Amino acid sequence: MELGLVGLGKMGGNMRERIRRGGHTVIGYDRNPEVADVRSLEELVSKLTGGPRVVWVMVPAGEATQSTVDELAGLLSPGDIVVDGGNSRWTDDEKHAEELAAHGIGFVDCGVSGGVWGLEYGYALMYGGDAEHVARVQPVFDALKPEGSFGAVHAGRVGAGHFAKMVHNGIEYAMMQAFAEGWELLEAADSVTDVREVFRSWQEGTVIRSWLLDLAVNALDDDEHLAGLRGVAADSGEGRWTVEAAIDSGVPLPAITASLFARFTSQQEDSPQMKMVAALRNQFGGHAVEGSK
Amino acid sequence: MELGLVGLGKMGGNMRERIRRGGHTVIGYDRNPEVADVRSLEELVSKLTGGPRVVWVMVPAGEATQSTVDELAGLLSPGDIVVDGGNSRWTDDEKHAEELAAHGIGFVDCGVSGGVWGLEYGYALMYGGDAEHVARVQPVFDALKPEGSFGAVHAGRVGAGHFAKMVHNGIEYAMMQAFAEGWELLEAADSVTDVREVFRSWQEGTVIRSWLLDLAVNALDDDEHLAGLRGVAADSGEGRWTVEAAIDSGVPLPAITASLFARFTSQQEDSPQMKMVAALRNQFGGHAVEGSK
Amino acid sequence: MELGLVGLGKMGGNMRERIRRGGHTVIGYDRNPEVADVRSLEELVSKLTGGPRVVWVMVPAGEATQSTVDELAGLLSPGDIVVDGGNSRWTDDEKHAEELAAHGIGFVDCGVSGGVWGLEYGYALMYGGDAEHVARVQPVFDALKPEGSFGAVHAGRVGAGHFAKMVHNGIEYAMMQAFAEGWELLEAADSVTDVREVFRSWQEGTVIRSWLLDLAVNALDDDEHLAGLRGVAADSGEGRWTVEAAIDSGVPLPAITASLFARFTSQQEDSPQMKMVAALRNQFGGHAVEGSK
Amino acid sequence: MELGLVGLGKMGGNMRERIRRGGHTVIGYDRNPEVADVRSLEELVSKLTGGPRVVWVMVPAGEATQSTVDELAGLLSPGDIVVDGGNSRWTDDEKHAEELAAHGIGFVDCGVSGGVWGLEYGYALMYGGDAEHVARVQPVFDALKPEGSFGAVHAGRVGAGHFAKMVHNGIEYAMMQAFAEGWELLEAADSVTDVREVFRSWQEGTVIRSWLLDLAVNALDDDEHLAGLRGVAADSGEGRWTVEAAIDSGVPLPAITASLFARFTSQQEDSPQMKMVAALRNQFGGHAVEGSK
Repeated sequence: MELGLVGLGKMGGNMRERIRRGGHTVIGYDRNPEVADVRSLEELVSKLTGGPRVVWVMVPAGEATQSTVDELAGLLSPGDIVVDGGNSRWTDDEKHAEELAAHGIGFVDCGVSGGVWGLEYGYALMYGGDAEHVARVQPVFDALKPEGSFGAVHAGRVGAGHFAKMVHNGIEYAMMQAFAEGWELLEAADSVTDVREVFRSWQEGTVIRSWLLDLAVNALDDDEHLAGLRGVAADSGEGRWTVEAAIDSGVPLPAITASLFARFTSQQEDSPQMKMVAALRNQFGGHAVEGSK
Repeated sequence: MELGLVGLGKMGGNMRERIRRGGHTVIGYDRNPEVADVRSLEELVSKLTGGPRVVWVMVPAGEATQSTVDELAGLLSPGDIVVDGGNSRWTDDEKHAEELAAHGIGFVDCGVSGGVWGLEYGYALMYGGDAEHVARVQPVFDALKPEGSFGAVHAGRVGAGHFAKMVHNGIEYAMMQAFAEGWELLEAADSVTDVREVFRSWQEGTVIRSWLLDLAVNALDDDEHLAGLRGVAADSGEGRWTVEAAIDSGVPLPAITASLFARFTSQQEDSPQMKMVAALRNQFGGHAVEGSK
Repeated sequence: MELGLVGLGKMGGNMRERIRRGGHTVIGYDRNPEVADVRSLEELVSKLTGGPRVVWVMVPAGEATQSTVDELAGLLSPGDIVVDGGNSRWTDDEKHAEELAAHGIGFVDCGVSGGVWGLEYGYALMYGGDAEHVARVQPVFDALKPEGSFGAVHAGRVGAGHFAKMVHNGIEYAMMQAFAEGWELLEAADSVTDVREVFRSWQEGTVIRSWLLDLAVNALDDDEHLAGLRGVAADSGEGRWTVEAAIDSGVPLPAITASLFARFTSQQEDSPQMKMVAALRNQFGGHAVEGSK
Repeated sequence: MELGLVGLGKMGGNMRERIRRGGHTVIGYDRNPEVADVRSLEELVSKLTGGPRVVWVMVPAGEATQSTVDELAGLLSPGDIVVDGGNSRWTDDEKHAEELAAHGIGFVDCGVSGGVWGLEYGYALMYGGDAEHVARVQPVFDALKPEGSFGAVHAGRVGAGHFAKMVHNGIEYAMMQAFAEGWELLEAADSVTDVREVFRSWQEGTVIRSWLLDLAVNALDDDEHLAGLRGVAADSGEGRWTVEAAIDSGVPLPAITASLFARFTSQQEDSPQMKMVAALRNQFGGHAVEGSK
């Protein structure tokens, strides 16, 4: 089939390649003319000639996605479909669906996982929307997903794709934190003399064998004690949104939230709250405090 | 080689079978005569005739292990080796090693992971002790471990095996909690209509693919909404010891500890601390409280 | 001065009384005619005749507050002032301020603490808005606040009052949780035979002496082991909003969030996430699970 | 009455003064001859001539306390009493009681709170032991405690005093963390222009009014944004022991433990676990990491 693809960055560029390998025609647009197949969204739409069009949006969440959806609402025709494959907040999806529906245009939201490994191994896809809209995009989903039985799911109605991807990332936060905590504790143990080999051994036969564990071993093979890194971990929107969604629903997420907060703390040069704790200790106990001077 | 194996329960029984499949001679003792090869520890020791003996202890941590070590200290000879493959606290290992060393007997501690799947796929093994002692047990380790390059590690000196296994279990706690939190949040979402299929799809191409995820899908295939279970999760010693070890070392373990505390809470019929919170709300705000009557 | 007061529930009714004791004229409106001084907002506005009017809104946050603000925007005149003393989310304040400013009407947001004790001891007040608007309401603030130097603050611009009150409540959550955790641990200790007397003794000379501790002692005097309560604690919007505000700002709030999640858990009949943990334990270890049958 | 007091540091020295003001005779021993009344424990014991002796030990927990108890066991006579007023772990108390009981000497453990303010306002005391032993020390407790009805409690049998004091400190950790988190969130809010005045206002009429809040205001009066401090907070044994006691009893302590872990993190130059999280992000996503070079 024919697909318009908007956004050819690290993710979009590789996805274009994998879809083409699947035998489909992809016309890609990007603000960067060096990677784009066409010069404008208008040109992209005009080149999609094989019947009702499908345009996949793969640009940053928020304003960039919103303005692309707005523009496509004006360029596309009734019966066409827009897929938002970016990292949009699930609460944006219904808004986009309604806006496009007013023009007779269908909407599917799709969470995409796979990072830099997706081109080779396939992308995990979680999508939401009406069955008829999803069916139209199915050939592209099939091209993108990993080989085998898994890796793609129609999770529910509009918004379900991004919601499921968001929860995936929330789980990922806590799994990464789990390995990180365990690693720090092993490194602190006197008796354990080869933490890297312990991690390596866990790759088979254990309850915790997983792709993240494999990656941890790779990282330790590169730098046994991670001496070349600083303990600073960024967070993306999905981790924050996961906790917000949980609060909305009254669902307790202690491990995922602890993982998010550990990243927040890591991002601070100095901790205001621990200044206050130090100040209080000083007030009541005359405990020594460390001054910044 | 020849091995004495003390304790033929769910774990020990299967391990005897796997070691025998590896071509070794195992003489097993258990208090239950129906599964035992010999009637007593004394008889077990007397049957090990091929030079310096190796006796693997696979009984419950604490008193049972202690009394077995005590008895073996009296029965074995200098140059023999005792392996503690049970779930002993790492702090017991040094004590056992010293006690046996006073008799000229070597000691190796070994954490074993694998559960009911170990007989078929092999057991992950983490062991600690002197290189010469470990070398003597190596053929047994090789028979027990999974095929391939991974699954067994000499983690460090005496105590390192149980310590590494304990940390493995701590990581396991947080990984299980991660999937559990994500599952609850998905089940609470209006838009997501098929949570089980979302979990199933994650088995390939995602960052969180793992054996625990596979098991979660198995569990959901048995009972899609886990309606037949109560939300009560037991905890074993390892989770608690992991947190205690972290406190000893001043290492923060927020996600693992959150996972342990979630289990504690699940084990309570009613929460004393939340009674106090309810009582305080009532005191200052005249908020309605739920009485138990 | 003259004040219009909309909402005469548990809080509003007592506040009317305290403002009147301060020598001011209060005309109160409530949907419940038994407590109202006037029959409608229109009548309330018409009775305020002493120059530019001040109307204090004390109704539930969300729709009720929004519709009251909307109606007042149509009834009041340029130069009048609306105070929102309810538990509105701080993000609503700027919206209300803009809407009223379009009519030349000023806006002040005010967080009010004090519960059922406020009539007697005074209400703690945190307000936000332009200095000139705040100055107009000051006599009412002075009547409501406790005697002495503390209890009222102009926290900043519009929204700052509700924000400060929200943070107050977040701190309150964690303080209540602190006492609740400590109480449960003492109740679980074999050696401590009189937990209530331990709490009572802490009321002087300790670092943790506080009004909440006094209330805890009151609660234990009513019911020494809180046997008549169930461990279920409701949560109000402020606790949730505090965590959301922190996430927006990248501020870690581990203790406050733990306190919120403890309440969430207490509100569940059974814990879905712990069902999943139990199911996973069963999958890999053949651990017994508690069935609901 | 007559009291022997061992340890005249910051705490012990002030306590000697307050007991003397209460009309009692105190003979104090310290390794530092400048503050001591006698040259040795032997001399101290010999100076206590008014019948059965009471010796209060106020030295660091662990080895110093153990060796003092050992020495006193040899110097004192049947019917004498030792009080351990230091910060001993509650698990040491039973051991000390048994050791002294073998010599016919009684034992009382006593947790003392009050810090640098105790001399003036009195010390909060929590003690454990047999009623007859406690009764013998009662005049000293009465002299040390604050005026009024509160501040001293016979918490239970031997060990209960230190246990109660330990829990007090655990609660203190979470209360300090609560104020610290709230303060950081207010400081991060755009709308709130005077955080210090918000804190000051809370000192009356609020649910969170407390001595720690008063101290926080003092600290902010000294340094409005705590700019002169580093965000590093030490932890003492009691916080760690509180969590360990909870783990022993299966009691969840999420807020107190979060407070302890926040201190652990604050003590680290760089966070090993966050290096691992950063490394994993880099592995799967090609996310930029901050190198230490």
